[in-house]
Amino acid sequence: MDLSNKKCVPCEGGVRKIPAEDLQKYLNMVNGWSLVEDGLKIEKEFKFKNFAKSLEFVNKIGEIAEQEGHHPDIAFGWGYCKVRLSTHAISGLHENDFIMARKIDEI
Amino acid sequence: MDLSNKKCVPCEGGVRKIPAEDLQKYLNMVNGWSLVEDGLKIEKEFKFKNFAKSLEFVNKIGEIAEQEGHHPDIAFGWGYCKVRLSTHAISGLHENDFIMARKIDEI
Repeated sequence: MDLSNKKCVPCEGGVRKIPAEDLQKYLNMVNGWSLVEDGLKIEKEFKFKNFAKSLEFVNKIGEIAEQEGHHPDIAFGWGYCKVRLSTHAISGLHENDFIMARKIDEI
Repeated sequence: MDLSNKKCVPCEGGVRKIPAEDLQKYLNMVNGWSLVEDGLKIEKEFKFKNFAKSLEFVNKIGEIAEQEGHHPDIAFGWGYCKVRLSTHAISGLHENDFIMARKIDEI
């Protein structure tokens, strides 16, 4: 399954978290993301050579976020950008989060 | 003293932290910033109506940061943007941080 060809689906009611035993399978489909906050979110840190490059990356994430209708939490500054993904409606991880992660990996 | 008319000065060697007893005076010159990390940094959270508005604000901060040569740490996502300022070269607060804070307040 290649997540980069998938699109985030609307997450309203009735969607379920990825079962804990399936998380590793999803982590293997993305590059360098780790579980944080008791496995309720995934996170990855990217390094850059200055602030402007970090901000450029942030804006590319912003474009993907609007296309997919799925918005990460981003912490960035001089030379770094930390991205955290989870699905608010289910307070946990959905396939959408890994689809976003894969698309961010491809920036 | 109106910080909004001042520019950040280069912070290389020999600059000093703002003495602890003067910090309140500086905090009074900006709007809603608080000391964090044992008084070594200042922080303020801004609220927005969605992710795109937060990102728009982040980009305006980015412009000021490049003009002033002083770069905050920013954490943002859907509806919020948290900005943290400190002066790396002195591991603490310099007037530059309050100049930046004042300019961010004026966005």
